[in-house]
Amino acid sequence: MEYIIQLGKNAKFAQLTLADASTALKNRALTAISAALIENKQDIIDANAIDLANGKANGMSDSLLDRLALSESRIKDIADSVLEIVALPDPVGVIKNGSTRPNGLNIEKVAVPMGTIAVIYEARPNVTIDAAALCLKSGNAVILRGGKEAINSNIATANIMRNAIESVGLDKNCIQLVEDTSRETANALMKLNGYIDVLIPRGGAGLINSVVQNATVPVIETGVGNCHIYVDKTADIDMAADIIFNAKTSRPSVCNAAESLVIHKDIAEKALPAIKAKLDEKNVELCGDEYAGKIIDISLATEEDWGKEYLDYKMSVKTVESVEEAITHINTYSTGHSEAIITSDYTSAQKFTKLVNSSAVYVNASTRFTDGGQFGFGAEIGISTQKLHARGPIGLPELTTTKFVIRGNGQIR
Amino acid sequence: MEYIIQLGKNAKFAQLTLADASTALKNRALTAISAALIENKQDIIDANAIDLANGKANGMSDSLLDRLALSESRIKDIADSVLEIVALPDPVGVIKNGSTRPNGLNIEKVAVPMGTIAVIYEARPNVTIDAAALCLKSGNAVILRGGKEAINSNIATANIMRNAIESVGLDKNCIQLVEDTSRETANALMKLNGYIDVLIPRGGAGLINSVVQNATVPVIETGVGNCHIYVDKTADIDMAADIIFNAKTSRPSVCNAAESLVIHKDIAEKALPAIKAKLDEKNVELCGDEYAGKIIDISLATEEDWGKEYLDYKMSVKTVESVEEAITHINTYSTGHSEAIITSDYTSAQKFTKLVNSSAVYVNASTRFTDGGQFGFGAEIGISTQKLHARGPIGLPELTTTKFVIRGNGQIR
Repeated sequence: MEYIIQLGKNAKFAQLTLADASTALKNRALTAISAALIENKQDIIDANAIDLANGKANGMSDSLLDRLALSESRIKDIADSVLEIVALPDPVGVIKNGSTRPNGLNIEKVAVPMGTIAVIYEARPNVTIDAAALCLKSGNAVILRGGKEAINSNIATANIMRNAIESVGLDKNCIQLVEDTSRETANALMKLNGYIDVLIPRGGAGLINSVVQNATVPVIETGVGNCHIYVDKTADIDMAADIIFNAKTSRPSVCNAAESLVIHKDIAEKALPAIKAKLDEKNVELCGDEYAGKIIDISLATEEDWGKEYLDYKMSVKTVESVEEAITHINTYSTGHSEAIITSDYTSAQKFTKLVNSSAVYVNASTRFTDGGQFGFGAEIGISTQKLHARGPIGLPELTTTKFVIRGNGQIR
Repeated sequence: MEYIIQLGKNAKFAQLTLADASTALKNRALTAISAALIENKQDIIDANAIDLANGKANGMSDSLLDRLALSESRIKDIADSVLEIVALPDPVGVIKNGSTRPNGLNIEKVAVPMGTIAVIYEARPNVTIDAAALCLKSGNAVILRGGKEAINSNIATANIMRNAIESVGLDKNCIQLVEDTSRETANALMKLNGYIDVLIPRGGAGLINSVVQNATVPVIETGVGNCHIYVDKTADIDMAADIIFNAKTSRPSVCNAAESLVIHKDIAEKALPAIKAKLDEKNVELCGDEYAGKIIDISLATEEDWGKEYLDYKMSVKTVESVEEAITHINTYSTGHSEAIITSDYTSAQKFTKLVNSSAVYVNASTRFTDGGQFGFGAEIGISTQKLHARGPIGLPELTTTKFVIRGNGQIR
């Protein structure tokens, strides 16, 4: 597809200047972006109003409309988050390790930008700015392919950012938006080998799966989270209820929200009513296996429920006879995002953290902490659920690769 | 494909015991493999003789037959290399970093096995053992899919290894060989999502390209090396000739051998005859651009030559007017493996190492050093030419991923 190839060429050319840019220049560009977003906020709000009106006309749900909306205060928050990226250390040029070999060769492994990063995402206009800022700080050109529902908002913010970075002397093609939101442009990006060094999909299971199935460029899978909380037989029941309530209801639409409660049968009779009472405060709908259904009044879970990311006030309940059975259940149905055990038993905690096969495994804490900011890494571009390259929150260091630089004085082998 | 899915299931089950295995147990398994290879060397040689006879009957070239052959001394070398892996540190369980957050959460990032690694390779039976040993030490189950030309050798060595690890108490399915070498089994492996955590192709450009185009599982691209040596105008001509001779002729069939000479026009008239005289000792065939052809008697290079990995006593010669032009030429035609500059100018060296976009960039040394052993990392499973996860030699640490383990005492967000 000629249009997408041209974006790839533009990015490759623009990135050459960014690869060579000082930290100070990159930070000036980010500061200019932040200021320009505030300065041009009315343009953004006007463009966003068109997207919101189209969304309403097309019957978009309230929660999706909420994700799409850009108010003055949200623009301020986004502009502030760009300034937070200014404050983060530059990941480029960090020497990861090195040695001098017996033959005198001096070898160092140094962090360098990936090159060009493509991001495919849905109707969340904040991703346009977050992703562009993180890619810029890590020395990468970015090609942004957002959902058609946010296209007016995205065009407005992308143009503001492009002008801002040009004003400090960077090539504006370091940030490019795919303005044609047809399915063809997404597919072409997925196959743009030679131009795209890594593709990061951000969105629901359908988008992620489409990218995994179709992409020939390297991919970092993100964000689908069927997170479990396992209540061990020795759990503190109040702690369990508080953590489950927090993990399920503090923000049900995000990937680190809990979707499934797994509970030891020895504690179920006492704990399930207490947990249900807490979840009833937010009208969380529960379904579960037969054993759970004998203790609390809930509907019967189907096989499909165990693998489901509800992203809603809904939760499945599975009863088990041991921590080993809990681990097997979780490793079977989890998406590899975040899982927690609530226990006061040392051995159960050790087993769970060792054998649960997910990017983040918690003891006695809410899964909602899986987040670059909460982990102290600063901003993130997503949560990786794959094992290659990045696992868990993807921050600035994960947006770089490494290069070996070897200095000699005539060595041959 | 039912057969391949079954191998995937076997691997997943077997890996559970390996994930939990102590370093001592893994090392006992490797020691048992090494001893069993020596003990059963005659079986291996007999099986290999069938492959060699088939290869000869099918007109296999001498260099391919040489790669296929397993003599007593080669088996000894391979068995010794397994013992070298025993001596390497266990990459699993290393705590990469960690912190205690203001809310008291204790976060650590710990190295864990990938899970199941698949390796698709050609007619090199040594890869069967190298790959199995590296995967075992890093706690991964491995599914090996070698070329049909080596199938008898591979069946023999795989069975010896499976029995050896079983003898120390490991599940023999930690090492599995795909005995059906049809194209279908390779394609099925490439799409075995949910079972294969990473697929590593080892072989020529055709194999690598097929994997990149068809795989839906995560891939680490390896090994295609169109390596360049750039002779800057300030180069020491003797050093340049020695390094080029070494990089081209010490082992032309490997991926870190040099394929293209790039030379500054200001030094070409003096240096090219000296370099050619040295390469003539091994009858290296040269082709080049018009300017080079005026200085030395060589054939004219075509556009295709610039991108070619000859893997033979052949080399292209490109003349340039500046280090910048050399860098652009290399970044256009290189496969991102290894490139070298020969120079005595500090600024040229700095520019070259900063702007050449390859996994290993050398100053005044031969590209032949790009190798896990030469870099001091121990054995390697290949050289990555992609930017995701691993770049350059892939050693034991690159065969692991990480997991965040978070310990709290009731924290909610």
